[in-house]
Amino acid sequence: MSDQAFVTLATTDNYAKGAMVLGQSLRNHNTTKKLVALIGPHVAEPCRDVLGTVFDEVRVVDVLDSGDAAHLSLMKRPDLGVTFTKLHCWTLTHYSKCVFMDADTMVLSNIDELFEREELSAAPDPGWPDCFNSGVFVFTPSNETHEKLITFCSENGSFDGGDQGVLNSYFNTWATKDISKHLPFIYNLSSISIYSYLPAFKQYGHDAKVVHFLGKVKPWSYSYDNQRGVVRGHSLPADQCQLHPDYLLLWWQLYAKSVLPLLQHAYGDSPFTS
Amino acid sequence: MSDQAFVTLATTDNYAKGAMVLGQSLRNHNTTKKLVALIGPHVAEPCRDVLGTVFDEVRVVDVLDSGDAAHLSLMKRPDLGVTFTKLHCWTLTHYSKCVFMDADTMVLSNIDELFEREELSAAPDPGWPDCFNSGVFVFTPSNETHEKLITFCSENGSFDGGDQGVLNSYFNTWATKDISKHLPFIYNLSSISIYSYLPAFKQYGHDAKVVHFLGKVKPWSYSYDNQRGVVRGHSLPADQCQLHPDYLLLWWQLYAKSVLPLLQHAYGDSPFTS
Ligand SMILES: O=c1ccn([C@@H]2O[C@H](COP(=O)(O)OP(=O)(O)O)[C@@H](O)[C@H]2O)c(=O)[nH]1
Ligand SMILES: O=c1ccn([C@@H]2O[C@H](COP(=O)(O)OP(=O)(O)O)[C@@H](O)[C@H]2O)c(=O)[nH]1
Ligand SMILES: [Mn+2]
Ligand SMILES: [Mn+2]
Repeated sequence: MSDQAFVTLATTDNYAKGAMVLGQSLRNHNTTKKLVALIGPHVAEPCRDVLGTVFDEVRVVDVLDSGDAAHLSLMKRPDLGVTFTKLHCWTLTHYSKCVFMDADTMVLSNIDELFEREELSAAPDPGWPDCFNSGVFVFTPSNETHEKLITFCSENGSFDGGDQGVLNSYFNTWATKDISKHLPFIYNLSSISIYSYLPAFKQYGHDAKVVHFLGKVKPWSYSYDNQRGVVRGHSLPADQCQLHPDYLLLWWQLYAKSVLPLLQHAYGDSPFTS
Repeated sequence: MSDQAFVTLATTDNYAKGAMVLGQSLRNHNTTKKLVALIGPHVAEPCRDVLGTVFDEVRVVDVLDSGDAAHLSLMKRPDLGVTFTKLHCWTLTHYSKCVFMDADTMVLSNIDELFEREELSAAPDPGWPDCFNSGVFVFTPSNETHEKLITFCSENGSFDGGDQGVLNSYFNTWATKDISKHLPFIYNLSSISIYSYLPAFKQYGHDAKVVHFLGKVKPWSYSYDNQRGVVRGHSLPADQCQLHPDYLLLWWQLYAKSVLPLLQHAYGDSPFTS
């Protein structure tokens, strides 16, 4: 349906690469929905071009320039910059329903069935499972909801300093009210859970539909040897790196095959590091 | 109500100490329910005596000797020993409803309201939040359910080698069917979650009702300086030890005040290490 969309966000070139991989993974699995990328004003021109190839709509969101409620609130809460930007997805009112996905997620199969769910549907967060993880959620764009969220956010702040805290405080009946708003965990499988309860991953993980590279280390923190098809290390200590090697490789394979050529084309002769 | 009970399990003297602390914590918060301890045949006599002081009923369960379905099944699945023993709680048919609690849990307030819930109610497991954690759960004793569980267990095994795997496979609609069977996470708060999402703990943790010392390191892995009121280290590497110091201290304070005197009395002159 053309009035339904997957939405992601990237305020930096690195997160933009994540968004490209996510977008390609959705295309590869034949989504029938529109793809929307919200970007910050600092994303480089060639990156925007590539995003424009992969996504149906690329929209620059700059809460600092917007002159609306978000702008005013942000003056009081400069710490909540990226959070305010993410909340901007509610203003996409030319869509009747959307699924937000973090730029560090990647789909492993078609997930269009998520649009059968209502706002606010999301999967549990493995750290505190009565909170939902805000890396994947179903929502209904609405300027009214957007304003309320911004007001709530500026008045109450965020208990975790990010959008997940705000969204959980605002949609605060998620844990107790309606089981249909609990997305199965396989729609937002974080690498952390693979290791914290390995037997469950072995039992249920083969049905994974969305991988979420949650945490400090992102796929783009690594590098990739395209010739040999192997992922190279990063500079962080081993215990801070919990990305599953298979999913990590999958991300890089998709990047090398479907994103890198677009970037090389967009950057042409200008300096560019993959 | 006298036909409702909290039930725990201890097959060793160490877990028996945990059970004593749990039992005392329930008494301290004025539960109106009966307290039942299932124990293995190897729990020492003086420990049984102390359990008998704290609990209304102490029942020795020895699936190896029982000659029932569990016995037969266990011959084929000797690996599932403690699991089979835990499932034994379903045979407590002189109670109409029970709440099982691991011996490594401790209550921080009265939780009798759990008896308003139906089988099988439990809180999400932080490792894989579409599974429930089997450290705290509401159930309805029934010989029929017990037999079915034992059969299921012997035919399918357990994906994690323990009772949590079996119970999640058997009660397999928990994640998707009825939100009232999702106990709030504060009824089974594992120390692991305190560190994996600290802001959420700070936001919601003050309402904690049950602490669960899940994992390799248990409160009794430490020692306690009664004079100074401080908990002393254990021999495990620091990254394997994630018990919250406040809760750990609370456990030991309860142990020193209400359990140790009973043990000293029961052991009399015989050798006894606290
Ligand atoms: O500097 C940033 C940080 C975050 N994000 C967006 O906000 C999401 C949430 O942040 P992140 O995924 O890093 O948090 P985590 O999932 O690791 O908690 C990202 O996926 C991006 O879509 C962004 O665009 N720029
Ligand atoms: O040797 C054992 C192991 C376990 N248990 C019982 O089974 C429960 C589950 O085991 P544990 O708490 O060690 O597992 P965890 O919660 O750490 O996964 C314990 O609390 C006890 O009630 C027992 O009696 N003896
Ligand atoms: Mn993320
Ligand atoms: Mn336990």
